[in-house]
Parts: sequence; C-alpha cells; structure tokens
Amino acid sequence: PSHVEEVKKLMAEFAEHHGSAGRRVVITSGGTKVPLESRTVRFLDNFSSGRRGASSAKYFLDSGYAVIFLHRHRSLYPYTRLYTGVNLLDSLQLVTGKEDAGQILVDQNALPNIAKVLKRYQAVKAAGLLLPVEFNTLSEYLHLLKAAAQALSSIGSKAMFYLAAAVSDFYIPAYEMPEHKIQSSNGPLQIMKMVPKMLSPLVKDWAPKAFVISFKLETDPSILLERAWRALETYNHQTVVANVLDTRRGYVVVVTKDTQQELVLTDEEVQKEVEIEDRIVSNLTEAHSEFMSRQV
Amino acid sequence: PSHVEEVKKLMAEFAEHHGSAGRRVVITSGGTKVPLESRTVRFLDNFSSGRRGASSAKYFLDSGYAVIFLHRHRSLYPYTRLYTGVNLLDSLQLVTGKEDAGQILVDQNALPNIAKVLKRYQAVKAAGLLLPVEFNTLSEYLHLLKAAAQALSSIGSKAMFYLAAAVSDFYIPAYEMPEHKIQSSNGPLQIMKMVPKMLSPLVKDWAPKAFVISFKLETDPSILLERAWRALETYNHQTVVANVLDTRRGYVVVVTKDTQQELVLTDEEVQKEVEIEDRIVSNLTEAHSEFMSRQV
Repeated sequence: PSHVEEVKKLMAEFAEHHGSAGRRVVITSGGTKVPLESRTVRFLDNFSSGRRGASSAKYFLDSGYAVIFLHRHRSLYPYTRLYTGVNLLDSLQLVTGKEDAGQILVDQNALPNIAKVLKRYQAVKAAGLLLPVEFNTLSEYLHLLKAAAQALSSIGSKAMFYLAAAVSDFYIPAYEMPEHKIQSSNGPLQIMKMVPKMLSPLVKDWAPKAFVISFKLETDPSILLERAWRALETYNHQTVVANVLDTRRGYVVVVTKDTQQELVLTDEEVQKEVEIEDRIVSNLTEAHSEFMSRQV
Repeated sequence: PSHVEEVKKLMAEFAEHHGSAGRRVVITSGGTKVPLESRTVRFLDNFSSGRRGASSAKYFLDSGYAVIFLHRHRSLYPYTRLYTGVNLLDSLQLVTGKEDAGQILVDQNALPNIAKVLKRYQAVKAAGLLLPVEFNTLSEYLHLLKAAAQALSSIGSKAMFYLAAAVSDFYIPAYEMPEHKIQSSNGPLQIMKMVPKMLSPLVKDWAPKAFVISFKLETDPSILLERAWRALETYNHQTVVANVLDTRRGYVVVVTKDTQQELVLTDEEVQKEVEIEDRIVSNLTEAHSEFMSRQV
C-alpha cells in the first residue's frame, strides 16, 4: 500500500521519541477485509468490532506503555469507543442565550463521563503516547505489521506485540482474482489460498527479541487449549490469549509453554463494568517485566 | 429477527402519523452481512459505506418526504455522516474559565457547518420525519424490508422504495451452515446459494401500488445498461438507477422501460461539493409525481 513508507517513518520516530527506558506495545485490532474481486464489490470479513484492542490500549497506556494502535479503518478506537453507540448530533445542544449564542455544548448526560475521558484522551495525545495507524485489507495489515516490527526492532525486549486483530486465514492471490464484479450466475467464490502466517517471520526475523502475544478465538471450547498449544509450538512465541466467542468478555486463558492461567470476571465485576482487558493487560505487563529481566 | 414485530409497529405508526397527504420513502442503505458459520466468526460482505443512502435521505427530507431509513448497523447516517471521519474527542474542548468550568464546547472548526447541520437535524427529528431502522445480516434486511412494504401498503402510490443497499447475491442456507468456526485446514467456503430476489414479491405482492427504484452497480460499463433493462423486465418495477463503481459519485443513468437519462456532475460542480444524490432525488421525486397522477 502506498502509505506504508510514510507510516514506517512515523513509527520509527515514535520508537525513538520515548527514549530508551520506556516500553512500547503494538496493538493490532479489528478484522481484515479480503477482496474477492480486484475492483472490489464483495469481500470476506472477520467478525470483530475492535473492542478488545481498543479497550486494551487504555490499560496499556495506564500502565505506562506507548502504544502503536494498528487498527481496521472505522473499528473501535481507544476512549472514543465509549461513545460509539451514540449519534453525535443527538448529544449536542445549540446555545440560544444572548451571550454565548451560536456556541454548541455537549449534553453530558448523552455522553457519560465525557469530561473525565476527554481529559485523559487529551493528556495521552499531548504526551504523544498513542500512534494510530489504519488498515483496511489483509494485505495492508500484513505490510504495516512488518513495518511496525522493523521500526521497533531497535528497542529489543522492551517491545510487546499484542496481536488482537482478527486476521483472515484465507485470501485470493492477485493473479487469480477476477477483475470485475463476479456475476451472480457464475457462482460466487473461487478457491481461496491460506494466508501465510505472519507470526513466523515476526518471531524469527523482524522482532526476534520482542515479547509476542497472539490471540486464539474459537467457538468450540473443547478444542481451544489444544489450538493454543499448537500455536505456541509452531511459532515459538511467548503467549497465547485463548478465548471462546460466547464468553470472550468475561473469560480468557493466558497460555504459555509451561503455564495456563484462567482470568475470569465474577458476575459482580461484570455489573460494575470491570473489563476483562484490565486483567489481561496487568497479567501481560507483569509477564513482560519478567521476560525483560531474563533477557539482560 | 426478534425485533421485527416491534419495528413493524413503529413503521405502521410512522405510515399513519403523517396523514394521507404526505409521501413516504423507504431508503435501504449499506451492505449486508452473510454469515459463513452459525456461530459467526467469518462473513461475506458487500462494499458499501452507506453514503448513497444517507446522502439521498437528506434530499428526500428537503423535498418533503417522510423517510424510513433501513440501514446497516454503523453505516453512514443522514447529517451525522458529514462528521464520520472526525474523532469525536478531537472536536471537543473542556471549558476551564471560572463561570462555565466543566462545560464542554464543540470546536466548530473541527466540525464544519455543525451549527447549521445540527439545526436541520433537530428540526427533522422534532417533526418525526425520519424513522431509522437497523439491520446487520442479509436475513434481517429481508425481513425488515418486507415489514416496511406491508406497513406502507395502506398509502398505495404515495410510497416510494429506494433500494440503495448493496444486497448480497449469495448466502448459505441455515441447514448447510457449519455450527463452529471453519478450521483453516478444512478449506474456507461451502457452496453458496443464490439469494431469492426480493424485488419480485415486493412489486407483485407486498407493495403493488408503490413506486419502486432499484440500483445496479457494475464495474464493467459495457454491461451496465443491458443489466438494468434485464432487471426492469424481470421485476416489472419502475426505475433502475445504474452506476459504475469508479464513477458512481459523478455519473448515473436513470433507466425506465422507455427512457434513459444520464445525470452527470461537471468538474465545477464536484469542486463546489454538489452531490449527485441531489440530482437523482429531484429526478425521482418528479417521476413519482407523474406516477401518482397516472394512478388516479
């Protein structure tokens, strides 16, 4: 994609900017789009609102990480995500009084906690702690992830990769893709190829010293752990966060080669709007500290 | 879907509410999601931001129509769409002065024309002229369109259907759908079936007196008109708005059984941000008037 070079530069500056002490995390978030035609009318997509990634970003920022947020265009965004369900125009009021006439005020009942959230968002922005990078298609995602890994290779084990995006397993190679909209009468879908797993080169070549977390989402709980272990064996990275579609907001298993820890929210915590990402991030930042100390 | 009954009632009230004189239009907008698994991780989608539908809604409202806006969840929305690219939190300012401290003001430079747009939005809302209805999947879309047609059948030829949504041609029947996430090793996609065209029952049974417009999007201009004619012959409705992917924002052809009219924006008009939907809607509202007068 055309903007990769530009983004690469921004990411390298971001890696430098925060000095040698700080930690950085690359969060990937949202689903990937796989075009079925080269002038695309139809595409294959993965279920993902980007909630996991956007929520986690907040907790990483709270824990002192600088965050590269590599996310699908229009997926949920840190802080702003809290107001995604609200129509902007339903939350504004025109001031009609004499003095401030023409000003537009936010209805703070329509946007709960907005003052607090806005303050925190502005502080994070002013400190340059959040670098947002957008992708749309699978191919953009792959190129940008590689660029991020290369940009952060200079900081070694202080870099974490938190790969929460829902990446397609399948794609149609450019040379097999029809140019025009597939006509209904011709049947819909070609044979698709497996997407090369990027975890392999990421772990082996691009960021060999980094702390790498992948996610495993299944719908069938009975195969979940086996899949997580297989991923760790195949890619040789540090951690898999395993979760099941139906329960993903209240239950995950953090799996390493030697351990597996269940993180669970109680009903009471769910009621109090505690987020499981808070737990995931505090588990992983601790593991990252240990990982860093072992590298020295 | 569970909310169809509830929405049906809202639509019937909406049809009644505006009396016997007014015209109503059902606008469909955005792409449809076709699940590939019954606990869905992957789905097939159609390219559509919902821009055509959301923009058209504004011009229909300006022309005195009451609008049922049947749109894909999170696709573009009338008026609000103008600010979709802007991060909400980047457009707000905390007031720190003594008197109004704690209030939050809109930065009107970040949201151009916001005061004017907000006023118009609030007027439309207060007059109850816009009924938003959301869908996600193909199946929800089909059920809701049928419900809308039935709700408006009482007003006969005063109802227009403006079917701008990008509806999938393919689906997987429930009985052939795998329950769980398709494992990568098993290959991605099953044989998909053709979606039954809803235009047939809409025109014949559900809303036989209504003025019905469908859209035809192709990537290959050479087959465009032939496809439009074929649709008119097959479904026996009034009008096809035909457009080509690359040029859809500046050029469409309004095709009826006897006529075809090209609507084109000049470069100058594009620069002045004239929208082609303005032209499409004024063409169609005029045609609707003629259509209504022929029915009496």
